Amino acid sequence: MNVREVGPRDGFQNEPEVVPTDEKLRLIGLLAASGLKRIEATSFVRADVIPQLADGAEVLRRIDVPGDVAISVLIPNERGLENALRLRDRFQEINVFLSASETHNRKNVNRSIEESLSGLERVLGRAREEGLRCEGVISVAFGCPYEGHVPPERVFAIARRLRDAGAEEIGFGDTTGMANPAQVRSYFPAARDALGEDVELTAHFHNTRGQGLANVLAALDAGVRSFESSFGELGGCPVPAGATGNIATEDLVSMLHEMGVGTGISLDALLEAARAVQEVLGRPLGSHLLTAGPVEWNDSPR
Amino acid sequence: MNVREVGPRDGFQNEPEVVPTDEKLRLIGLLAASGLKRIEATSFVRADVIPQLADGAEVLRRIDVPGDVAISVLIPNERGLENALRLRDRFQEINVFLSASETHNRKNVNRSIEESLSGLERVLGRAREEGLRCEGVISVAFGCPYEGHVPPERVFAIARRLRDAGAEEIGFGDTTGMANPAQVRSYFPAARDALGEDVELTAHFHNTRGQGLANVLAALDAGVRSFESSFGELGGCPVPAGATGNIATEDLVSMLHEMGVGTGISLDALLEAARAVQEVLGRPLGSHLLTAGPVEWNDSPR
Repeated sequence: MNVREVGPRDGFQNEPEVVPTDEKLRLIGLLAASGLKRIEATSFVRADVIPQLADGAEVLRRIDVPGDVAISVLIPNERGLENALRLRDRFQEINVFLSASETHNRKNVNRSIEESLSGLERVLGRAREEGLRCEGVISVAFGCPYEGHVPPERVFAIARRLRDAGAEEIGFGDTTGMANPAQVRSYFPAARDALGEDVELTAHFHNTRGQGLANVLAALDAGVRSFESSFGELGGCPVPAGATGNIATEDLVSMLHEMGVGTGISLDALLEAARAVQEVLGRPLGSHLLTAGPVEWNDSPR
Repeated sequence: MNVREVGPRDGFQNEPEVVPTDEKLRLIGLLAASGLKRIEATSFVRADVIPQLADGAEVLRRIDVPGDVAISVLIPNERGLENALRLRDRFQEINVFLSASETHNRKNVNRSIEESLSGLERVLGRAREEGLRCEGVISVAFGCPYEGHVPPERVFAIARRLRDAGAEEIGFGDTTGMANPAQVRSYFPAARDALGEDVELTAHFHNTRGQGLANVLAALDAGVRSFESSFGELGGCPVPAGATGNIATEDLVSMLHEMGVGTGISLDALLEAARAVQEVLGRPLGSHLLTAGPVEWNDSPR
């Protein structure tokens, strides 16, 4: 099972205080030490817009993880990619994003979906020239807080554009926690039909309404083998206010291990990273495992 | 789908402060107004042991709900039943409980499982003479924090004793949140095989490790049609410390409705009850729906 940790980007971006660079590097080191093989480390966005990630270049330069850990960088546009490419040898993957609804995309990046897609197609083309693996993330893929139902066909049409431009992986984001397990069970087989066998389909669920792990279970049933999550249950979407909460990586890994699904991750080591970020941020985080601890027979790693 | 609200007993029992009787009655009224047809209202336990429920008789006397709402009372022993029977016409169901592990049962009620069973068999027999519907609840049915794995066969043997003594419904309690969806999927079909078709099988999950609704989904897949939950995510088990959290009724109902599973409950009215109990208790409660609100297309009732 593939698990990508997105806390160092998605989580830290949404913190009111800037996490010191040294702490970011220490926490990323702890995450990598747990056996996670995919870590979204930072983003190349404008420092005046997102000061929390203004140290992206320094993070990449100083990051020190085993060679089999794929470091991913969120790229908003062509300028962001050119900035990141100055450190081309320090990361292996990029991810680009847009929303499945016009309203959400406009509020998030002030562009139409078509404008976003045109720009991202150029980004993906350039990234592939540089040998980078590319993920295209589609926000509000299961429902939009502004527009309500989002037709899956519209999401899959966007996904096909991203795939054709070079994305080897499509992330389906439940940005404000509107997905439900019945929907998820029919969604991913339809996505597979629409996108073919060669694209990795990744589920990115939020726990906004408490259904995060139920949706993971439904996605497993539907053949999904790739998930994104955030240690401590950090992160979420700042639009609209109150819509927070990726599923917690340690809660996800605990459930998978209890079910007998291997991840290659040490739950104990992952909890060490989660306790460390909780200490750095200085407040109780939303993760359940941080409070309850693992079930006693949940040995690790699996 | 049957949903029993256990907050007025399980929830209020675990609050540090005693909830005033008038407030209990107002909140039970709000719960009944949401369309819930099963409410565990109180318990007949010793007032010096559980002062939070010392007003059980007054609650029963003054309770005012529609005639199709089944009021349930938790009965610890024969003395508790005799006390409750003075108000025989004020409730329709009782539930009795014991633990599936010797250690947990000893710590919880200071008896062996056999001692508990012998007493409860007399309670169930007497209650059936009085025409009361009976549920037998088995705690730590999916794992014990002291003993670890609990063999399902041991749980089912206890359940058969309760059934044979008159219990028409068996509640399987995941008292400290150790159940996982893979376990749940095999557990309930085995319980059905062991107990026959005439017993209602009820799942009582806690959200201790975040898997509460994932376990509900697994139980639905396994044919379960009866759940217990607590508004606001109140309640839990005081042994051991830190093990808290029934699944929240509003989170459960929201997921069921989103999946197209009818409950007869108005989610809006249920949220009114949850907001009211949050105000009475004066702290943010754990329920996700209280923060996030329902998805916009989740019309009610369903």
